[in-house]
Amino acid sequence: MTQTLKTKTPASALEQLLAATKDGMDQVNSLILSRAESHVEIVPKLARYLIESGGKRLRPMLTIATAQMFSKSAPNAVYFAAAVEFMHNATLLHDDVVDESEMRRGKPAARMVWGNQASVLVGDFLLGQAFLMMVETRDLDALNILSKAATVIAEGEVFQLSKVSDLTTSAKEYDLVIRSKTATLFEAATKVGAMAGGASEAEQEALGLYGAELGRAFQLVDDALDYGGINGILGKNTGDDLREGKMTLPIILALKSANKNEHATIVSALGKQDLDDKDLRQIIAILNEQNTLGQTLDEAKQSVEKAKQALNQLPKSNMVNLLADIADFCLLRAS
Amino acid sequence: MTQTLKTKTPASALEQLLAATKDGMDQVNSLILSRAESHVEIVPKLARYLIESGGKRLRPMLTIATAQMFSKSAPNAVYFAAAVEFMHNATLLHDDVVDESEMRRGKPAARMVWGNQASVLVGDFLLGQAFLMMVETRDLDALNILSKAATVIAEGEVFQLSKVSDLTTSAKEYDLVIRSKTATLFEAATKVGAMAGGASEAEQEALGLYGAELGRAFQLVDDALDYGGINGILGKNTGDDLREGKMTLPIILALKSANKNEHATIVSALGKQDLDDKDLRQIIAILNEQNTLGQTLDEAKQSVEKAKQALNQLPKSNMVNLLADIADFCLLRAS
Repeated sequence: MTQTLKTKTPASALEQLLAATKDGMDQVNSLILSRAESHVEIVPKLARYLIESGGKRLRPMLTIATAQMFSKSAPNAVYFAAAVEFMHNATLLHDDVVDESEMRRGKPAARMVWGNQASVLVGDFLLGQAFLMMVETRDLDALNILSKAATVIAEGEVFQLSKVSDLTTSAKEYDLVIRSKTATLFEAATKVGAMAGGASEAEQEALGLYGAELGRAFQLVDDALDYGGINGILGKNTGDDLREGKMTLPIILALKSANKNEHATIVSALGKQDLDDKDLRQIIAILNEQNTLGQTLDEAKQSVEKAKQALNQLPKSNMVNLLADIADFCLLRAS
Repeated sequence: MTQTLKTKTPASALEQLLAATKDGMDQVNSLILSRAESHVEIVPKLARYLIESGGKRLRPMLTIATAQMFSKSAPNAVYFAAAVEFMHNATLLHDDVVDESEMRRGKPAARMVWGNQASVLVGDFLLGQAFLMMVETRDLDALNILSKAATVIAEGEVFQLSKVSDLTTSAKEYDLVIRSKTATLFEAATKVGAMAGGASEAEQEALGLYGAELGRAFQLVDDALDYGGINGILGKNTGDDLREGKMTLPIILALKSANKNEHATIVSALGKQDLDDKDLRQIIAILNEQNTLGQTLDEAKQSVEKAKQALNQLPKSNMVNLLADIADFCLLRAS
């Protein structure tokens, strides 16, 4: 795998996965479009605005990929994949309302165009449609996994909210937040894919573990990127977590190891909505000084290793190699 | 039925239904409490704040009642009933955010105590738990009805939102809104109850129809009560629909029949957030002049009649009589 990593650009693993799942994803994409339809005009307009805004669709792709690993034709996988993407998009709509986010995927968040109210309700609609698609498969075990995931995700989001600007938040609590709000859906996506493909229980577990660790790594990298990552490149949304008072690992670790002055500087910046670039650079300097972005990425690396180890339990195949590359890709985003 | 109606106070039909479903509802209530639990402290606190705020629990009671009609023991009905109540409460949490409501059931809305963000997310949690409970019954037909209902309710809410302060809204469009956002859940509640009890398909259809028409009547009466009903008694929330620009039947009909001056008065009041009692009384005077509250209640009466007719397709029983009384009770609230 390490060799593969060296010879590939970050994007190419994703491009290869896209190519390998193309037929399934074409079906998923048309199912997504048809299920976003409604006699209420604003529903498909808002839903499509978000859905077609250039997300990577990594979660549904993982569902299709894990199903394909075991079966050439797994019609349920298409439904699960679309349901997973709808659940993800419902979460994004609600998150943007909760976080008062102004941007999403480089364009104004849906709530800035259609309002908070429509965003909440169209999120509910997508969640309902997700369940309806799952029910259509009549696979109760998959339904159980996905509805459990919906609950755990919401629970994780509330937990995160309850910890906003809470200086006592521990790394362990942060871990629970990201495992709930992010890893759970990745885990569900890979597990129901494997189920749809007819994998054995051990294989389902292995792919579920892969998904969970991949999702954890993904969120850790995201949280490091929110401070510009290792290279400290500031983008449009850089510093948003800090402005929102989100207790992510880079900040939690820095609060622990910082000296008195640095500690005070972090505390004064946390939750400061009108934080400017100068404030932000000051915080990033402290995070670099304490190497907490590095430590956060080390945590991500550990999860990537666990994800790849989980894949070792599966018969060797091109798809398994691709999933390992996807785990590496996840880290490369941050470097 | 008419005779029963004369000898009963409005509350007594509800009290009798409560007594008749007590055993089942005790189980529902303890299931509700246990499923509102979470390791995230704010989740049960917020959920219980709403759940224990003295709602009538009419929907879950209808599920238990319709199941009991066919079977003494219908364990799935308890799960469906709790799921229906969770779906209802999730909707209330999201609605109060969408409507910016300050009061709910005579006390500050959850969002005033816990914030909009937690209300949105705990709503999502309750919706997830509702699906999880349905999945536990392993009854795919009931799952289909309830997940379809979740989608239609959200769709109805978005439709209502898209019609805010839209003077061209027709009575037909209003009917679609209330059938979607309110009648659908009543219909699902009675239908899955009948299914859990082992009713025939014709009986399920009849009870579904009863639920749908009862729910429609319920919303019509609510919308008349929002203007004080026939007696014009103003309460804490009277006029909220007008302030929010909600196009309900009393306003839609009045805009149609009013003269030029009255029309202008309504238009200027619609969506006026700082509407005072004097403004409100002026609008109510117009509604009374045009008898649109009366017409709204006439519509409700028609639905109550249809609901009672649907019951005629069922074998006579005390429970059937009680459900007929509940339909009458729904009207009595407004007089």
